[in-house]
Amino acid sequence: MSEADSVGAVEPQTMHFAQALRLASGASIRAYDLAYETYGQLDAARSNAVLVCHALNASHHVAGCYAAAGGGPAGSVGWWDNMVGPGKPLDTRRFFVVGVNNLGGCFGSTGPASSDPATGRPYGSSFPVVTVEDWVRAQARLADRLGIGRFAAVMGGSLGAMQALQWAIDFPERVAHVIAVAAAPKLSAQNIAFNEVARQAIMTDLDFHGGDYYGHGVVPRRGLRLARMIGHITYLSDDAMMDKFGRSLRNGRFGFHFDVDFEIESYLRHQGDKFAEYFDANTYLLITRALDYFDPAGRTGGDLSAAFRPALARFLVISFTSDWRFSPERSREIVKALLDNRRDVAYAEIEAPHGHDAFLLEDPRYHALVRAYYERIHAGLPGAAR
Amino acid sequence: MSEADSVGAVEPQTMHFAQALRLASGASIRAYDLAYETYGQLDAARSNAVLVCHALNASHHVAGCYAAAGGGPAGSVGWWDNMVGPGKPLDTRRFFVVGVNNLGGCFGSTGPASSDPATGRPYGSSFPVVTVEDWVRAQARLADRLGIGRFAAVMGGSLGAMQALQWAIDFPERVAHVIAVAAAPKLSAQNIAFNEVARQAIMTDLDFHGGDYYGHGVVPRRGLRLARMIGHITYLSDDAMMDKFGRSLRNGRFGFHFDVDFEIESYLRHQGDKFAEYFDANTYLLITRALDYFDPAGRTGGDLSAAFRPALARFLVISFTSDWRFSPERSREIVKALLDNRRDVAYAEIEAPHGHDAFLLEDPRYHALVRAYYERIHAGLPGAAR
Repeated sequence: MSEADSVGAVEPQTMHFAQALRLASGASIRAYDLAYETYGQLDAARSNAVLVCHALNASHHVAGCYAAAGGGPAGSVGWWDNMVGPGKPLDTRRFFVVGVNNLGGCFGSTGPASSDPATGRPYGSSFPVVTVEDWVRAQARLADRLGIGRFAAVMGGSLGAMQALQWAIDFPERVAHVIAVAAAPKLSAQNIAFNEVARQAIMTDLDFHGGDYYGHGVVPRRGLRLARMIGHITYLSDDAMMDKFGRSLRNGRFGFHFDVDFEIESYLRHQGDKFAEYFDANTYLLITRALDYFDPAGRTGGDLSAAFRPALARFLVISFTSDWRFSPERSREIVKALLDNRRDVAYAEIEAPHGHDAFLLEDPRYHALVRAYYERIHAGLPGAAR
Repeated sequence: MSEADSVGAVEPQTMHFAQALRLASGASIRAYDLAYETYGQLDAARSNAVLVCHALNASHHVAGCYAAAGGGPAGSVGWWDNMVGPGKPLDTRRFFVVGVNNLGGCFGSTGPASSDPATGRPYGSSFPVVTVEDWVRAQARLADRLGIGRFAAVMGGSLGAMQALQWAIDFPERVAHVIAVAAAPKLSAQNIAFNEVARQAIMTDLDFHGGDYYGHGVVPRRGLRLARMIGHITYLSDDAMMDKFGRSLRNGRFGFHFDVDFEIESYLRHQGDKFAEYFDANTYLLITRALDYFDPAGRTGGDLSAAFRPALARFLVISFTSDWRFSPERSREIVKALLDNRRDVAYAEIEAPHGHDAFLLEDPRYHALVRAYYERIHAGLPGAAR
């Protein structure tokens, strides 16, 4: 048997929540569904659950693969399948792993494309703006229903890491460890600027119809495509792009036109086209806004150390040297704030060339670190073999 | 009298060229106009002429201001007015300065919006792709007509610097000094990627009509606006954006909507709107393509040193520490290639927080350096007071 098998065929599940969720904005969602998946077994002490939070373009489908045709729009294989599975860094033979599609998503959880029970039509523009705090509260309710009082760990990369950090602040008794990869304590002006251009691309697409395109039989495909292209540039480092594409020409020489000349153009168009096929534009707006608004220190007058004061968890913080979206400096701000509170923090800056996307890739040092950290968590669980 | 006066009221001029210009693509422009401006006086020896080349969003209107209402779409004051004028670093009391709108432009030179004599309609999509080499050859013809055999200096920032470098390679006898600010010897994959997203924003705008929008009474305003927003992010450093805008909220608190919340959003939208008012979308495509294609080492098998072998000029190369579009490293590649050829090179890396835009700003060290360099040039001119 291989040490690094996949969890194999998995099936998404859906949990309905009939009780209204009051949101940070003051609005409420009256009732909602969350799509989720689980891998591994919850132990008798209910002590081995790990929540994996997703970033922009991902879902509850963290690991394993969907059987046959019903592969789902985001692809058949889970987005963090290299991280989660039997024998993998987050070992599903030891941990019970939960993935959940966030509220406002487009992969099964209630979102803008869902039918609003009040009108019988898709929410569209009337879907409320949701925040990282809202997501975490919705995740906590899911944990209640799954019988998980306390997570052994909450883990995520990028926006997923922000949710993990929020867990430590909002539910200190319910999370033992936080693993925050490629995170930032809040977006910079440049981060917000990229989000804004992406949103403007979507919102000025004539097929957007103010967010209520569902009834028009169209989607703002051109805008979504541009949004994805812009995003993609920020996920890769300059060097990684240069290594992968350089100035390679598709036909060996300049075409003196505006069609594809350079391989990087072809790649970006392809990424944009693919994304626009399956992602919901309103969800893109919501998720980028949640990113913009994330700022735990906003509640404490800008003092990040004060923001983390309630946290009781232990932390593993990981950044990547070539990540210019959320640079190591941003992770160090988090580490400093945690240390100010005398929290137990392990921090690693991984030398990796791939930019922000590194958190999704199988870098040996990165994975070895996460593996070792989970082994330490496991060793501390009640009934674990020592 | 102030040491730093403006050249005052100026008027653009137009030169018609009846002889066809064969382009790098193999296509030709049969006849064309170039819009240009001059400041100062050409000396008796015709030795004090300086050509200032423009970057993406600029023109022949380098210095001074247009009288009254006819301010022109790019604004009344010249785009490098802080650099060029009586008593300024490029002192128009000593030098005869020429600014020219490049071929394919939209400020008076023949471009896609101009009438094609063959059809009587705007060129639109039939305007040929032009390169930095083509621009330089067109500029050389203008110099011929102005009676300038040899420039004391050719100067530019960003794409303008690329033209100055190309001058040294293609017309070594005709340029004594090159001043290349915030340059790169060729675009990186990431640079091309940003250009491509901007072009795709324009080309997928439903009002683009394949480049022949002039006949439809519309312009691809949404696409141009996005292109400018994307570009703008790359002109500013992350730190400069943070200093200028930070996470400041327009109304002091989150609006929980997708309208303007953050000041940076307002700024970008404003920049985009303004630009879309006056810039021609086809010109934007052409200029970004000229940027993509610029690669003098392409002619010499990728060997930049070999590419500069013909150059005879002396060089001043200047970069800015916070410029992530064309970082100091890119300027150092140029300097190294010039030194390989034992050329006379002065290189300065200016500590400046403003990113790529720094080349347009009045940084005292930067301006002092350019001033001193021009004083050195002036001292070497025939008949100059020593």
